[in-house]
Amino acid sequence: MITALDVHDVRFPTAVAGDGSDAINRGDYSATYVSLKTDRGVEGAGFTFTNGRGNEITCAAVRALAHHVVGRSVEEIFASPVAFWRSLSADVQLRWLGPEKGVIHMATGAIVNAVWDLRAKLEGKPLWRLLAEMPSDELVRCVDFHHITDALTPGEATAILDKGLSGMDDRRAELERDGFPSYTTSVGWLGYPDDKVRALTRQAYAEGWRAMKMKVGGPIDDDVRRARIIREEIGPDALLMMDANQVWDVDEAIANMARLAEFDPYWIEEPTHADDVLGHARIQRAVAPVRVATGEVAANRVIFKQLLQAEAIGVMQIDACRVGGVNEVLAEILMAAKFGVPICPHAGGVGLCELVQHLAVFDYLRVGATLEGRMVEYVDHLHEHFTDPVRTRDGRYLLPTEPGYSATMKPASIAEFSFPEGPAWR
Amino acid sequence: MITALDVHDVRFPTAVAGDGSDAINRGDYSATYVSLKTDRGVEGAGFTFTNGRGNEITCAAVRALAHHVVGRSVEEIFASPVAFWRSLSADVQLRWLGPEKGVIHMATGAIVNAVWDLRAKLEGKPLWRLLAEMPSDELVRCVDFHHITDALTPGEATAILDKGLSGMDDRRAELERDGFPSYTTSVGWLGYPDDKVRALTRQAYAEGWRAMKMKVGGPIDDDVRRARIIREEIGPDALLMMDANQVWDVDEAIANMARLAEFDPYWIEEPTHADDVLGHARIQRAVAPVRVATGEVAANRVIFKQLLQAEAIGVMQIDACRVGGVNEVLAEILMAAKFGVPICPHAGGVGLCELVQHLAVFDYLRVGATLEGRMVEYVDHLHEHFTDPVRTRDGRYLLPTEPGYSATMKPASIAEFSFPEGPAWR
Repeated sequence: MITALDVHDVRFPTAVAGDGSDAINRGDYSATYVSLKTDRGVEGAGFTFTNGRGNEITCAAVRALAHHVVGRSVEEIFASPVAFWRSLSADVQLRWLGPEKGVIHMATGAIVNAVWDLRAKLEGKPLWRLLAEMPSDELVRCVDFHHITDALTPGEATAILDKGLSGMDDRRAELERDGFPSYTTSVGWLGYPDDKVRALTRQAYAEGWRAMKMKVGGPIDDDVRRARIIREEIGPDALLMMDANQVWDVDEAIANMARLAEFDPYWIEEPTHADDVLGHARIQRAVAPVRVATGEVAANRVIFKQLLQAEAIGVMQIDACRVGGVNEVLAEILMAAKFGVPICPHAGGVGLCELVQHLAVFDYLRVGATLEGRMVEYVDHLHEHFTDPVRTRDGRYLLPTEPGYSATMKPASIAEFSFPEGPAWR
Repeated sequence: MITALDVHDVRFPTAVAGDGSDAINRGDYSATYVSLKTDRGVEGAGFTFTNGRGNEITCAAVRALAHHVVGRSVEEIFASPVAFWRSLSADVQLRWLGPEKGVIHMATGAIVNAVWDLRAKLEGKPLWRLLAEMPSDELVRCVDFHHITDALTPGEATAILDKGLSGMDDRRAELERDGFPSYTTSVGWLGYPDDKVRALTRQAYAEGWRAMKMKVGGPIDDDVRRARIIREEIGPDALLMMDANQVWDVDEAIANMARLAEFDPYWIEEPTHADDVLGHARIQRAVAPVRVATGEVAANRVIFKQLLQAEAIGVMQIDACRVGGVNEVLAEILMAAKFGVPICPHAGGVGLCELVQHLAVFDYLRVGATLEGRMVEYVDHLHEHFTDPVRTRDGRYLLPTEPGYSATMKPASIAEFSFPEGPAWR
């Protein structure tokens, strides 16, 4: 029985360092952190990520939704997982505040993630293993197919998951040996001067990274100059991804990518407004064979459905807590498999690496079944605040082994960085 | 100078009566009510509409944005209107919570609307007149064209507005004489039993209404039965609109509209998920000549842009406070004109009729320049709480004459219905 839901407004003062600065965001990485208390001595942890100011708004949204989970048991929730999910996402009064987008949906994600963390801890498994070992029909029963049946039916989802059982043990052994491929975003934030970009790129290459992402979307001449620096440092074979964080209009994106093409970008991420499915489709047609990538602020499964239907993306970047938690991410992973688009999860911020590694591993083990085109974003920030932080080796994520969703923050970190009363903010 | 921003959590206990019940919402009509205090003895009023629980979340969002408006003057704001609008919609930390959607964007709308109300009051004009009499280039300077230049350029917008000056005096005289056409939604809520639907339809017809909207999206046999009752009562010539409030999947919408076609619907509103541009386009192709209508929860101008580009709608239902206030609605009205789609604003709730009448009148006077296919929704609820309530005659809105945006709530109503401390909630 879940006896209480505590929510913590936890903020890390990252804005001053220029870390995480891009074309439109400059924030204090923050978490709307949910802790589910139970009468079984185990706590479920989940969160949604925010950018500093406004974290109190998502905290308020969590409080407004809390009554849907307090007083229920994990067994009861998973007996009717879609009914539970809809109790949050389709609450007859709160739905109006989205619907299924923005603050209220991010709060749903925080709570839903905490429920999955709790279940995984109770079963003594890391989340990726809990998911990978679930029977297909049980996984399918966790997905709300409402509004996506024109792209994926429950029967198709079951078939994908059944097929994924084949060879799973081999893939798991491979991951346990080698880890999961990743790329780094820590080299090319817009807030960094050129010499810092060059030094960080050189350092990352020396550390073994062969896929790096830079921010674009400043003055195009600056973007070109920085791209040249990075390509010089990494040589012709390493992958260079670019991320415009939605700053361009559609035609502007097409024109700017024509100039940046000489640096052989592997993908262009968020080339325009995140809601612009048709715009992404036009850009994808124009910039091919460069891939369009997006997803970190894609509001829900309906946006992802359309991006796939419109052939607007070549890389799908799921996020663990922008949408309504694990249940909705399952829908996205399954749709990506149906449409043959590889998943490269969005991470960074605070705790996002910890979460998405589980999703990427599940995708590989049970759904996508290939590493081709798969990489998890990696940013080396703030991992020290988690009890089960990501571990990497030679540019690869090592498999999590602790039970749960790796979402649990250290109590000392929560206390130190709680806003506004924590010592870090006084 | 705006010296302070007060926000009030005002809720009306409408859920118990079944008013406003549809396929997915059942709420206590509420307003996140913003009052801008000035040193000139005039207050600006604006709000966003919510459905009850959660109104405290949009109130928190308004507080998070308030520093962008307090300490500024109306003159300063309108000297750089897009810069002001972006200070809210593209705040480097708060934008993450949308972007430009849901709670944070609705809060932006409440504040922006209050600024326009304040300006209109200071100039002694109702908002529709303030807008209709503005020079074209000043109106265009109020629009943020970011992310919509592939659909509408500033030059195109100016040309539309210049053209709209022709004949405007005649159109204004016509509206002053006859009022603006409207339709009623008060007859067919899902919460009402059949005999109440029949009685309300008969009464509305007797009162002169020749366009009525019913809710659909329950069991299809119930929808068919209720459609038959209404069509029996209104005869073959009156318009019957249907509203599914997003409950159907795409193929389900197409199948159900095939069954409802015999009742000659004029439009089908929100046939599926509000974010599903491609789904609406498929439905529009399937149900033509019945028009697809949507917009009351369309998150922003980028969603509207795509609905128009994809030829997904035959009627565009702008909302006054779901998007970022008057500035963004101007973008939507201008795009609709460019694409030749008539605007029929969404109203109802609390105060929405008061607001959208100004937008519809401006559209007719200065942009669309025809009443063909134009109607404003009308619901006879809660007007008594406003100092300048809508007035109707024979199914038409009479032109507002008081200065401002008709957004000002009576102080006694604010006090009575403030949540949770007002007498109505104790």
